[in-house]
Amino acid sequence: MAKGKVLLVLYEGGHHAKQESKLLGALENELGIRKFIEDNGYELVATHDKDPEPDSVVDKELEDAEIVITTPFFPAYITGTRIAEAKKLKMCITAGVGSDHVDLNAANARKITVTEVTGSNVVSVAEHVLMTMLVLVRNFVPAHEQAITGKWDIAGIAKQEYDLEDKIVSTVGAGRIGYRVLERLVAFNPKKLYYYDYQALPEAAIKKLNDLSLILNGRGDIVEKVDSLEEMVSVSDIVTINCPLHEKSKGLFNKELISKMKKGAYLVNTARGAICIEDDVADAVNSGHLAGYGGDVWYPQPAPHSHPWRHMKNPYGGGNAMTPHVSGTSLDAQARYAQGVKNILESYFTGKHDYRPQDVIVIDGDYATKAYGERKK
Amino acid sequence: MAKGKVLLVLYEGGHHAKQESKLLGALENELGIRKFIEDNGYELVATHDKDPEPDSVVDKELEDAEIVITTPFFPAYITGTRIAEAKKLKMCITAGVGSDHVDLNAANARKITVTEVTGSNVVSVAEHVLMTMLVLVRNFVPAHEQAITGKWDIAGIAKQEYDLEDKIVSTVGAGRIGYRVLERLVAFNPKKLYYYDYQALPEAAIKKLNDLSLILNGRGDIVEKVDSLEEMVSVSDIVTINCPLHEKSKGLFNKELISKMKKGAYLVNTARGAICIEDDVADAVNSGHLAGYGGDVWYPQPAPHSHPWRHMKNPYGGGNAMTPHVSGTSLDAQARYAQGVKNILESYFTGKHDYRPQDVIVIDGDYATKAYGERKK
Ligand SMILES: NC(=O)c1ccc[n+]([C@@H]2O[C@H](COP(=O)([O-])OP(=O)(O)OC[C@H]3O[C@@H](n4cnc5c(N)ncnc54)[C@H](O)[C@@H]3O)[C@@H](O)[C@H]2O)c1
Ligand SMILES: NC(=O)c1ccc[n+]([C@@H]2O[C@H](COP(=O)([O-])OP(=O)(O)OC[C@H]3O[C@@H](n4cnc5c(N)ncnc54)[C@H](O)[C@@H]3O)[C@@H](O)[C@H]2O)c1
Repeated sequence: MAKGKVLLVLYEGGHHAKQESKLLGALENELGIRKFIEDNGYELVATHDKDPEPDSVVDKELEDAEIVITTPFFPAYITGTRIAEAKKLKMCITAGVGSDHVDLNAANARKITVTEVTGSNVVSVAEHVLMTMLVLVRNFVPAHEQAITGKWDIAGIAKQEYDLEDKIVSTVGAGRIGYRVLERLVAFNPKKLYYYDYQALPEAAIKKLNDLSLILNGRGDIVEKVDSLEEMVSVSDIVTINCPLHEKSKGLFNKELISKMKKGAYLVNTARGAICIEDDVADAVNSGHLAGYGGDVWYPQPAPHSHPWRHMKNPYGGGNAMTPHVSGTSLDAQARYAQGVKNILESYFTGKHDYRPQDVIVIDGDYATKAYGERKK
Repeated sequence: MAKGKVLLVLYEGGHHAKQESKLLGALENELGIRKFIEDNGYELVATHDKDPEPDSVVDKELEDAEIVITTPFFPAYITGTRIAEAKKLKMCITAGVGSDHVDLNAANARKITVTEVTGSNVVSVAEHVLMTMLVLVRNFVPAHEQAITGKWDIAGIAKQEYDLEDKIVSTVGAGRIGYRVLERLVAFNPKKLYYYDYQALPEAAIKKLNDLSLILNGRGDIVEKVDSLEEMVSVSDIVTINCPLHEKSKGLFNKELISKMKKGAYLVNTARGAICIEDDVADAVNSGHLAGYGGDVWYPQPAPHSHPWRHMKNPYGGGNAMTPHVSGTSLDAQARYAQGVKNILESYFTGKHDYRPQDVIVIDGDYATKAYGERKK
């Protein structure tokens, strides 16, 4: 008899998984960890059937699972109700970064540990942020559409095409991803790089960015911590969101905050969809108050057909740079988060529980990270 | 009576030019230089009617023009035949960078001066190169298509999605644009940055890139000059072309050279379309030998409906990141090249001919630049 059950929820790969064996994050390839789990005396159940609650395979299998492994790309929402039904659940592992799809307070109440593979795809996401900024500012989407549909109307693109150079760019959250975004931005010669975060960057990290800017662009002192989010967004040409989703960041970018943004500014969000109010963003793009919005995160996921971010466009026909949730699941990233999940399981199976501290989100009934909102212990 | 005629050939702006007054590069806005030209006693004729030779307005007006101003985005090809008919022509000005659409040898034979606004849009192009690399490597186009068409098939994107990090990237040509591409790449933590150019980069420029890489990524010595183009492309994950079009670079990327590229590599060309053999590129993408090709330059321009780069796709449905020729005509760049054209005209009108040396391509019957191929004087 198995010691316990591991439930693994992944997106389906179908024929793609057959074509590409490196697609470890697809259901068919099971992160490459079936043998490892079985060798440790555990049973593995893998499924993509997560919706709707409470009639999915996830609901059924979670009831006696000890560990559940999920991803942010195709999240099984581990709600309070599901946790209440999952009597044997001891650990939720996120194969990736961002564990907001688990009800962390409910997990704490039951002393369930929540871990993730911190850092595993932060480079991938930072790259996606830079790509999205360039795609929006340089008006790539309608330009590419002209190319493939036989058109040649340069003015129609150029009238809303800018350089990234010499713009003011701001990040909400300057953790692993936010900081990597700033590093990649410096060579594009920004006028200013602002960040808003209740955790300050180390002096040395700021000095590094300023030194690089001085070497590359002849201007130092470009990085600044800002205490007022409203003020920051009101002077920024581009704002990017790089903080976790939690009580305080949920719905942060609503009509009111967006109305404070500069007319013609761009908003890039690869953090979590629910940090923005979907209709407020779509209204701002459709009206032209924002020149564009892009990113890869939605709520819920998969995003319904009718989700307004699928259809929004600025008055010139551009300004939509959305993708499904793919930035953190490049083949390079999959290798890293598959390995990271294995490491966490190993630490669990041996009973050592010597997790990398940065991988632990909640444990022993409390938050182990400072990233999910400011809390008094 | 006017002292002489200036012929200006620009793309049409139509309603776009009415919407956006910063669209200086559109016909309707005439680079903002009509008054300046007329105040100097010259007549200005502006047109977009450039094709077909010899029945266009350009052919008719060129016959007694003293100066012709053209752009690379919507080029009036100043062929040998046209030059032969243009008895009064003294100067061709490119509003932008890259004067290959002028028959430079024919200009030399007639001692016509050819100038351009060197540097005016090199940042814009370098940004477009970085954007195109990210779009291809991260598989943006099919991902965005899923977003706007209501799909959610993560595996279908991820199976050909990589990080730019840790890749080998090479440039053919390391002049103003090529070097700026390398500067912007460093923060993406490349494994190696190779360049192929008969003009070596200054030692200090290489040291700067290596120092930056050491600071950012903990690895120095990433930049290397390569003497064999075949060898360079055979080890590169991404190759970008950043050299002018001239006798020696025309058709350089043909079937043979492309066959030496790594299977699954990407090719990015914002230099000139004719540096690549169009069918050879399309075959390589359609067969999957190249994972993708992108850029904004074609031959001829506007590209015909049937141009294979409009329709090519890799076997997974991605790998096409083409746009019309827009990278160098962002609104930021238009301001710079409009000003640069005015400066050149001023130098001409005053009779000083004290052009910025870097703006002069051919003068007094000879090449003034080292960038258009190695020549024995
Ligand atoms: N799209 C993807 O594929 C993908 C992949 C990885 C991570 N993410 C998202 O990005 C988030 C950040 O990842 P990370 O690795 O940089 O995390 P991190 O913990 O290293 O950094 C997060 C930073 O955000 C700050 N923060 C928290 N709440 C904030 C608020 N309300 N306002 C401003 N700053 C706030 C924290 O103090 C911290 O500095 C993840 O939580 C996840 O939601 C998305
Ligand atoms: N897409 C656009 O909008 C756009 C805008 C500007 C320039 N361009 C193109 O980019 C080209 C380069 O611009 P730049 O400002 O960097 O020019 P540059 O003169 O500063 O640099 C060109 C470099 O290419 C090298 N070179 C020439 N022939 C070569 C060859 N066969 N192989 C390898 N290297 C070679 C030269 O030695 C030089 O170092 C322009 O000539 C133009 O065709 C395109």
